[in-house]
Amino acid sequence: MYVETDQQQVTGHSAHGKNVVNGLRKEGEIERPAIKTLSKEHDHVLKTFRLLIADLCQQFNGGHPGGAIGMAAIGVALWKYVMRYAPYRPDYFNRDRFVLSNGHTCLFQYTFLHLTGYKAMTLDQLKSYHSDRVDALCPGHPEIEHEGIEVTTGPLGQGVANAIGLAMATKNLQAMYNKPDFDVVSNHTWCMVGDACLQEGVALEAISFAGHLKLNNLTIIYDNNQITCDGSVDLTNTEDVNAKMRACGWDVIDIEDGCFDVEGIVQALNRARQSSEKPTFINVRTIIGLGSAVAGDAVAHGQAFGPADVVNMKKLYSFNPGESFVISSDVRRFFEDIPARGQELVNAWEKKVDDYEAKYPGLGAEFRRRVRGELHETWKDLIPTTFPAKPTATRASSGIVFNPIAKEINSFVVGTADLSPSVNMIWKGKVDFQHPDLKTTCGITGNYGGRYIHYGVREHAMCAISNGLAAFAPNTFVPVTSSFFMFYLYAAPAVRMGALQHLQIIHAATHDSIGMGEDGPTHQPIELAALYRAMPNLLYIRPGDSEETAGAWIAAIEAKKTSSIISTSRQALPQLAQTRRDGVAKGAYVLEEAEDADVTLIGVGAELSFALEVAKELKEKNDVRARVISFPCQRLFESQSLEYKRDTLRKHKGIPAVVIEPYAPNGWERYANAAICVKRFGHSLPGKAAYKYFGFEISVMTAKIGGYLDQTREDPILRQEFVEL
Amino acid sequence: MYVETDQQQVTGHSAHGKNVVNGLRKEGEIERPAIKTLSKEHDHVLKTFRLLIADLCQQFNGGHPGGAIGMAAIGVALWKYVMRYAPYRPDYFNRDRFVLSNGHTCLFQYTFLHLTGYKAMTLDQLKSYHSDRVDALCPGHPEIEHEGIEVTTGPLGQGVANAIGLAMATKNLQAMYNKPDFDVVSNHTWCMVGDACLQEGVALEAISFAGHLKLNNLTIIYDNNQITCDGSVDLTNTEDVNAKMRACGWDVIDIEDGCFDVEGIVQALNRARQSSEKPTFINVRTIIGLGSAVAGDAVAHGQAFGPADVVNMKKLYSFNPGESFVISSDVRRFFEDIPARGQELVNAWEKKVDDYEAKYPGLGAEFRRRVRGELHETWKDLIPTTFPAKPTATRASSGIVFNPIAKEINSFVVGTADLSPSVNMIWKGKVDFQHPDLKTTCGITGNYGGRYIHYGVREHAMCAISNGLAAFAPNTFVPVTSSFFMFYLYAAPAVRMGALQHLQIIHAATHDSIGMGEDGPTHQPIELAALYRAMPNLLYIRPGDSEETAGAWIAAIEAKKTSSIISTSRQALPQLAQTRRDGVAKGAYVLEEAEDADVTLIGVGAELSFALEVAKELKEKNDVRARVISFPCQRLFESQSLEYKRDTLRKHKGIPAVVIEPYAPNGWERYANAAICVKRFGHSLPGKAAYKYFGFEISVMTAKIGGYLDQTREDPILRQEFVEL
Repeated sequence: MYVETDQQQVTGHSAHGKNVVNGLRKEGEIERPAIKTLSKEHDHVLKTFRLLIADLCQQFNGGHPGGAIGMAAIGVALWKYVMRYAPYRPDYFNRDRFVLSNGHTCLFQYTFLHLTGYKAMTLDQLKSYHSDRVDALCPGHPEIEHEGIEVTTGPLGQGVANAIGLAMATKNLQAMYNKPDFDVVSNHTWCMVGDACLQEGVALEAISFAGHLKLNNLTIIYDNNQITCDGSVDLTNTEDVNAKMRACGWDVIDIEDGCFDVEGIVQALNRARQSSEKPTFINVRTIIGLGSAVAGDAVAHGQAFGPADVVNMKKLYSFNPGESFVISSDVRRFFEDIPARGQELVNAWEKKVDDYEAKYPGLGAEFRRRVRGELHETWKDLIPTTFPAKPTATRASSGIVFNPIAKEINSFVVGTADLSPSVNMIWKGKVDFQHPDLKTTCGITGNYGGRYIHYGVREHAMCAISNGLAAFAPNTFVPVTSSFFMFYLYAAPAVRMGALQHLQIIHAATHDSIGMGEDGPTHQPIELAALYRAMPNLLYIRPGDSEETAGAWIAAIEAKKTSSIISTSRQALPQLAQTRRDGVAKGAYVLEEAEDADVTLIGVGAELSFALEVAKELKEKNDVRARVISFPCQRLFESQSLEYKRDTLRKHKGIPAVVIEPYAPNGWERYANAAICVKRFGHSLPGKAAYKYFGFEISVMTAKIGGYLDQTREDPILRQEFVEL
Repeated sequence: MYVETDQQQVTGHSAHGKNVVNGLRKEGEIERPAIKTLSKEHDHVLKTFRLLIADLCQQFNGGHPGGAIGMAAIGVALWKYVMRYAPYRPDYFNRDRFVLSNGHTCLFQYTFLHLTGYKAMTLDQLKSYHSDRVDALCPGHPEIEHEGIEVTTGPLGQGVANAIGLAMATKNLQAMYNKPDFDVVSNHTWCMVGDACLQEGVALEAISFAGHLKLNNLTIIYDNNQITCDGSVDLTNTEDVNAKMRACGWDVIDIEDGCFDVEGIVQALNRARQSSEKPTFINVRTIIGLGSAVAGDAVAHGQAFGPADVVNMKKLYSFNPGESFVISSDVRRFFEDIPARGQELVNAWEKKVDDYEAKYPGLGAEFRRRVRGELHETWKDLIPTTFPAKPTATRASSGIVFNPIAKEINSFVVGTADLSPSVNMIWKGKVDFQHPDLKTTCGITGNYGGRYIHYGVREHAMCAISNGLAAFAPNTFVPVTSSFFMFYLYAAPAVRMGALQHLQIIHAATHDSIGMGEDGPTHQPIELAALYRAMPNLLYIRPGDSEETAGAWIAAIEAKKTSSIISTSRQALPQLAQTRRDGVAKGAYVLEEAEDADVTLIGVGAELSFALEVAKELKEKNDVRARVISFPCQRLFESQSLEYKRDTLRKHKGIPAVVIEPYAPNGWERYANAAICVKRFGHSLPGKAAYKYFGFEISVMTAKIGGYLDQTREDPILRQEFVEL
């Protein structure tokens, strides 16, 4: 317990016995730091910080004050004493990364960015929190676009996985580039989490994986205030979190007086940085909303304290109750050395890299290229220009197209959520990303320089970790994930966060239609494309054969600020003579033109060849002239000129269009007048039988389309509506 | 280790040292059962079972043989000795529930259903696995529609959470209906999991929660074969799973020789059933694909062994290599008493319920009603017919509408993922579902009879657990979940599984538009509606005011075989004179008609009033006559007659329609010609400012629509396309 001394006056409910500590901890289990006294200087800085948070929330009467206030001492320890960073060079490559997984406490980070001298984060900007200023740097959760922010966290739990990705990025770069005399990469990743983050599945997946990988360059700092929105954490969670973390392969350090014990926290953080073989979990007991009337209570979490309470806090802290946003010159002085210290780090690192390049010119140039986020220009030449004529699953095509690139270009790190045999992403000679000492039962080993990642059956963590890898520095890594398409619903919150952050992540998703077969409706992604076609800044691409798969990978690799899903088939697909990779780049293109066409058939991905076959049969059996377009990506098509779009679709010429895709048709109404589609969940049958069951036989489709065209002649209104055939 | 005796011949790779055991376990840590001998009878049954699995996969050269074979002894222990069930009365209310979370091993369950006498599961049906028979009872993952299957598991990890829901259902019914002399509900829930399930976040969330709740009526049986698709589990997971489970509040029992030790497994299962205060985790070491040439190897997981290997297995087991699907009369005899035993359970239970009803007529009648899955007919009368005139957030309306029902009708169990203060789902006098001994720091307690569930920050588990609650028996429970709409992306895989299983689950989702404000783009669900509007058997309903919120809840409660999302606003919305609850039932309806209309405005949910205001301003400023329709639910509208749809939309009268909704417009193209929408991620601003930022001001929208109508007159092609304004 914190003990008062006559050096200063301590306020807050811990002194009054209201400190809520983890109900599960047993006496004697805690590694107690020696009792600390709080220096006058620290006391003043902490009080200033807490009042700033209270004022910032009070001004617009909203926001999340409690957590940030509780974490004040942790912040001082991190930003003043432990973290290596450069406020005037926020993009310093070898900086420590800080991730705020409990992102709603963003004022914690914003305020320290301001105090430590980040230029963009002026006091004026700091005060934009919850304002209607549209260019504010203080959104409700930290956003990667802004100076000093490493990742956009947002929904709880994501940040934990992001931090693990950042730490993996460091490990990989170290293994590839560091030399005994040159540690050009040596940074540490710090991740702040709240009680909630540790309940979310994505974090639990990632924690287990980080323990497996023995990421000793990663520290999670747990703001253990035992409060969430609904009340005390023991309402929903009474596990022994320390024992759980140890079981997952983490070192655990306890801090008892997390609101005051700056020195103890500094010691713990430094010990964590020096950990030789495990990631570290620092369990810091804090009091939410310390100093306010609602300290230790759930209401301190998500609302301003109210003017009276803020005034009382100021009185308690011997501040002028009439003043707000007070930062004394003492406080300014406390932080003022930080930019210069940061610049020294930058200068030393730049000199080191210069010397490194002089000694290891090849590696040095390569390292510089990675720092700049550039790919070898030759990447596109590695893609085959011709493919075997035999029918080929597009998941296999993905491997044919991409594996030569993955092999040669070390920006790519390729992972799978335990579907290596299905996704075809293994290149010859691939080395796994693993702790070098690991000896697996199945005889596969690896090292941190490996670029193939077995994520385990952890789809959500895979994608959230990939966001961390990509966020390390712009395009230094291009993470590739792989799994069944259906399981990208598990990963959807992380896929979304990648797209939202403008991160280039490529998701290789196979088994993307009812053709995936026997696994049944739980694995057949009927409605999932509707999500990803609607998701901003994401290319959802369904290639129809090997050539289009080449186009899909080219589009994804060229989209340096956009995420992609390359959505492929389990089953073999015919290689089509008419497909073109540059057609894929436009999203849709004409595959077969027809004079005076009666109908446009839209073919997509695994079912593209159906459109060609139906067109043939429509001609032969119904004397209907059908043109065929291939439509692998709606978003790429939307970015084309109006002229191109009209020329391709020809709806403006009065030609009705019918799309063929065994998904819910939502979204195709923009391009088609009718759909041969699936509007219920799937059915467990072998692939071919599943197509038949849902009416995707050439003769059945031909008859349906023929009938539809007859109907529209009788009832022209149908042409203005959307018909499911 | 298993030890051979001269009683029988044991085959399988454990005898050859290939048994892969959890690499982490330390010697001495394992609670070793006494060395067991295997009776001739069991040996014969186990061999028969393993060969059946090998044959069933071999016939169509596919499927998942290895896991099912490894679990054979577990199955014998469960179905022959431990589980209480009735093959001829698969719906026996008080039966033990069995959940196969590792659902790809479905042949395990199907084969035991056949052997124990489930009538539908004939040998012929059993052989339908991987066939093209469309009425097969053996899909690639178990499906709830079929006799003897409790839940559709499918994607890994879900089943763990489902099982926890089933166990909670039992606890709740026991607390509400059991009397000291009448335990009308006394069943146990058994959940089989593989290595993968224990890596998935949804399972980890649920495991932590089950430990908190002390569900001693729940047992997880871990098929610990240390193999997943990619190889040995230690490639990705080296945690100490037993220590982790203990930290989460579970009892742990180890079984060393899980392929043979039927007796030890029976003892462990019985001990688990008798657990007095914790759920039990039985860690059973098995060998995947035991007896085949690929035993203990990843390739045993997901493909048939090949004809030669199957023949070899038969030779090894002294079976006739020329025969397939052999079930001897001895094996038949071994299982033949089970249906009669089951019928005795049913008879005894039915008599017990009769006697119970005689002694406790009110409670008895109520219990019968719950068993029948019926609601009190009066439920609809509990909904207010009028509402306060003041602007009201629809999340508040949700509470006004639903809380009186939740309070009175005990079929409803209402949960939240730590957003009680935001979702307004607390009724006066609500009691929490908690272990009765729990004393939380915040002073809230409860008991198992409580129907308000604090799930913690575990959205995915919340929804997957709700599936388990709903699956206990048809409509005995109607689970309600609640959170921010954005977080239903975390929960989407479970929401999907509820809809897929035709379970009535109602998801109360608030903060459903950019009006949610400051939390920013990570919390603003721009594209999420596109997913849920495309998802089969799910009603995604956005009500526009209190009256429509009443309509939404009525629709959701009446949809007894369908899941619903009621999608509400954070901010206050005006109460509109024209809204009608019976209009919501039709999905869309005319709010304001206009003679010779120039345009139809489609208003939706939180922005419905915008459409009315824009219509007014279009008339005043542009002399444009606009009709307004309210469109809360696309799926309900789709089920209306063509006539109703045309009368409502009037597209066939040549009137263009413009939808107003701050989401990605995907899917609206079916009903509208243009949209005022959002096609990028959101922005952190106060709600009103966010609307302004994205152009949702009345004057701006009016100008855009006026301009669009002018444009369409100049370029009529626009009317055939979809325009984002």
